[in-house]
Amino acid sequence: MDENRVDSHGGGMQQIVEFILELDKLKGVTRKTRPLGLERYENSAEHSWQIALMATSLAHHAGTAVDINRVVGMLLVHDIGEIDTGDTLVYAEGGWEERKAAELAAVKRIFGMLPEQQGAPFLALWREFEQGETAEARFAHAVDRAMPVLLNLANEGQSWRENGVSHERVVRRIAPPIKAGCPALWNYLEVRLEEARQKGWFGA
Amino acid sequence: MDENRVDSHGGGMQQIVEFILELDKLKGVTRKTRPLGLERYENSAEHSWQIALMATSLAHHAGTAVDINRVVGMLLVHDIGEIDTGDTLVYAEGGWEERKAAELAAVKRIFGMLPEQQGAPFLALWREFEQGETAEARFAHAVDRAMPVLLNLANEGQSWRENGVSHERVVRRIAPPIKAGCPALWNYLEVRLEEARQKGWFGA
Ligand SMILES: [Ca+2]
Repeated sequence: MDENRVDSHGGGMQQIVEFILELDKLKGVTRKTRPLGLERYENSAEHSWQIALMATSLAHHAGTAVDINRVVGMLLVHDIGEIDTGDTLVYAEGGWEERKAAELAAVKRIFGMLPEQQGAPFLALWREFEQGETAEARFAHAVDRAMPVLLNLANEGQSWRENGVSHERVVRRIAPPIKAGCPALWNYLEVRLEEARQKGWFGA
Repeated sequence: MDENRVDSHGGGMQQIVEFILELDKLKGVTRKTRPLGLERYENSAEHSWQIALMATSLAHHAGTAVDINRVVGMLLVHDIGEIDTGDTLVYAEGGWEERKAAELAAVKRIFGMLPEQQGAPFLALWREFEQGETAEARFAHAVDRAMPVLLNLANEGQSWRENGVSHERVVRRIAPPIKAGCPALWNYLEVRLEEARQKGWFGA
């Protein structure tokens, strides 16, 4: 980076612009689900947008009362590490520790592009989500886990079938976080997942 | 919608799920800019995500102190009307009133899918953005207008050249809202736009 440029604009404007443009890369990180009615795969940027609105719509169902602004903040930043690491199917087993270490290095790099005053709060949100200990983080996890399930339920199990994912594996991975963060959403999904199982929408 | 289903889940869960899935359509509304390094056009869902983070990063440069949470809320919902109306190039002239009426009808339909308690705050955010009268709305507009400019500056003027948009037209459309909402950002962009003009990155 050209130091003169940073200084001449003041307030870290050039650094902020470079950060915003770095975020563009999340639009190219694809997930395993397809948007309804589209052939392409969903990307992590549009996914982050959707779950921020999902959380806002569902806030009154959170297991514990939450500060929805912090939930939205977490959801907007939680996938940014994938700019360096790529997406991994949430049902993938193993390699979790290594993956999380790589994502931490990635977000330190990316949020480190910003002046400290702007970068530190983003990193704090990212860590809060990862640690999953606050009511806000638990609710955010519930929403993040439920979103691809809702798409699959509307898609005849597209990513479950394409990736050979069983009903039992989905329930094992998503029931605990969704129950913990948004019990009413789990009650809803449990019924829908059983219907989907009966329709043969799972793989394996 | 199946009324029994709504009632049986309580708290409007089925309505909320249908709203979230309706939002999926914004992933298919394409803009005129391309994400950096990708061949495809950007969609309005990923754009909304990016400008929410842009606003958060730039909040200390807002012309007047803002409640950043309301800014983020506005930016996350401001394009949802395009689900019914499609995107229009921001530099397009004419037809503005008709377009705005169509977008209002669209967001009333879409937010109306939610229970009143969840739908009304979204509609209020959308209206606040459209009216552009609060400090938060002005800042949100500045960020929304600046984002495609930043992409074009990083893209050698891709959408300006593809759509025959001149330097003068860009400045005329974006200078007033960006100056009003985020003067430091305008100071930055003015210099960068002049550099781009000298490099021949505009059309027309
Ligand atoms: Ca996610």
